[in-house]
Amino acid sequence: MNTSSQLFELAYKVYQQAYAPYSKFAVGAAILSSDGRTYSGCNVENISYPCGSCAEQGAISAMIAGGSKEIAQILVLADSQDLITPCGACLQRIQEFATPECEVLLADLSGIKQVLKLQDLLPHAFQNQELCHE
Amino acid sequence: MNTSSQLFELAYKVYQQAYAPYSKFAVGAAILSSDGRTYSGCNVENISYPCGSCAEQGAISAMIAGGSKEIAQILVLADSQDLITPCGACLQRIQEFATPECEVLLADLSGIKQVLKLQDLLPHAFQNQELCHE
Amino acid sequence: MNTSSQLFELAYKVYQQAYAPYSKFAVGAAILSSDGRTYSGCNVENISYPCGSCAEQGAISAMIAGGSKEIAQILVLADSQDLITPCGACLQRIQEFATPECEVLLADLSGIKQVLKLQDLLPHAFQNQELCHE
Amino acid sequence: MNTSSQLFELAYKVYQQAYAPYSKFAVGAAILSSDGRTYSGCNVENISYPCGSCAEQGAISAMIAGGSKEIAQILVLADSQDLITPCGACLQRIQEFATPECEVLLADLSGIKQVLKLQDLLPHAFQNQELCHE
Repeated sequence: MNTSSQLFELAYKVYQQAYAPYSKFAVGAAILSSDGRTYSGCNVENISYPCGSCAEQGAISAMIAGGSKEIAQILVLADSQDLITPCGACLQRIQEFATPECEVLLADLSGIKQVLKLQDLLPHAFQNQELCHE
Repeated sequence: MNTSSQLFELAYKVYQQAYAPYSKFAVGAAILSSDGRTYSGCNVENISYPCGSCAEQGAISAMIAGGSKEIAQILVLADSQDLITPCGACLQRIQEFATPECEVLLADLSGIKQVLKLQDLLPHAFQNQELCHE
Repeated sequence: MNTSSQLFELAYKVYQQAYAPYSKFAVGAAILSSDGRTYSGCNVENISYPCGSCAEQGAISAMIAGGSKEIAQILVLADSQDLITPCGACLQRIQEFATPECEVLLADLSGIKQVLKLQDLLPHAFQNQELCHE
Repeated sequence: MNTSSQLFELAYKVYQQAYAPYSKFAVGAAILSSDGRTYSGCNVENISYPCGSCAEQGAISAMIAGGSKEIAQILVLADSQDLITPCGACLQRIQEFATPECEVLLADLSGIKQVLKLQDLLPHAFQNQELCHE
């Protein structure tokens, strides 16, 4: 099984665990890190909507907790007629751990439909050398 | 005084009120709504960093509270050698109330340095007809 | 008109501007700052739910933009059979600008129903001297 | 090894992975779910501070992704002279998946220092029957 099939399977599995009672809109995400490991996450909503977490955010949390440092590929999956892209906040989160070349794979339940690069999605990312660490 | 000078003055004024004791990075934002009114906001940080608010978010809150519905122009100002663009989460918030043609004016303390359109910054915005209201 | 009636009127007015197409749950908030000024805000939802803003957050943004530094009283208003309290994230935001004695007024459309202190709502607030500024 | 020691070890392990270049304040969290499983998470900051994730949020994301539904105990660990409690937003997130009796264990690097119940930390949680699902 190639990498993108593996990410699709992981995202689909965690998509089924999504906690989305308010929007009824389940999302799953899976990451291949640059060191060759995989991670996944689903959305976790909250009755106070802004306190919820996105699927990509959960997958990134899992990646950092697991000791990886960089996203090589991230797949986002939802059951939607529109192809779902990461929300702006998640693009910002991906940006923190990825190069502009990072691949973002967009999938619905039938498979991967489109592959973009992070720089296609967030071409003018917020950068700030003055805030940068070390 | 033309509109963009007016937005610059508004953003500069509120920039001076920013509450940024953690990052030491003050930001001001000002909006021209499609109905010709102006609004502004600054960043408001929190000791729990994710609970903070961005300047653009504050300006959008002011716009909605004030009864306007659409962003025609939004100016973001900071004292930075790098030109500051809205973070991904704020692009998502602008997207909720703007067309792809919405102008995003990027400024430092000496003036407006660049004008982009929302579609330049967030070309593949998260959309979801299934979640859309009425 | 006394202060709490004034806060109720302000919160009710901005409640009517709330942008809540996803939850259909409008909220208004109004602040009396320690320097005797008033501010208000409503919730501003987003199709990416975690990118939305709470009413209290909007009112705090308005307070900081307006130059006040401390919340003396904050009123939260919604049309609900349950009495609405600020969500945990908003308690955290209030905490940043208030003493434990800060009054939190809970209202529905018919008036103020209960008054609590911040310390009643968030008795063991996250504090961290090591992050504190100055 | 008893459960709380196990949670301490898990939180300590993930604490060492925390990504906190902006605050320099690493946090680890570990959950015992009501079905007897364990999960952990660390904070993951972002250059746009409000886009960061808390440790508790990461642990909850892991729990939901892992198929558990309820938090029985959650431990929060940081290297701090002040005893660290969950921020308000995380109390709100814990509330979504816990009863008022849920135990919150507060630890520093030397061990567990205090045990509180969720109801001690968030005694008047935001509730809204009208938003509730099902």
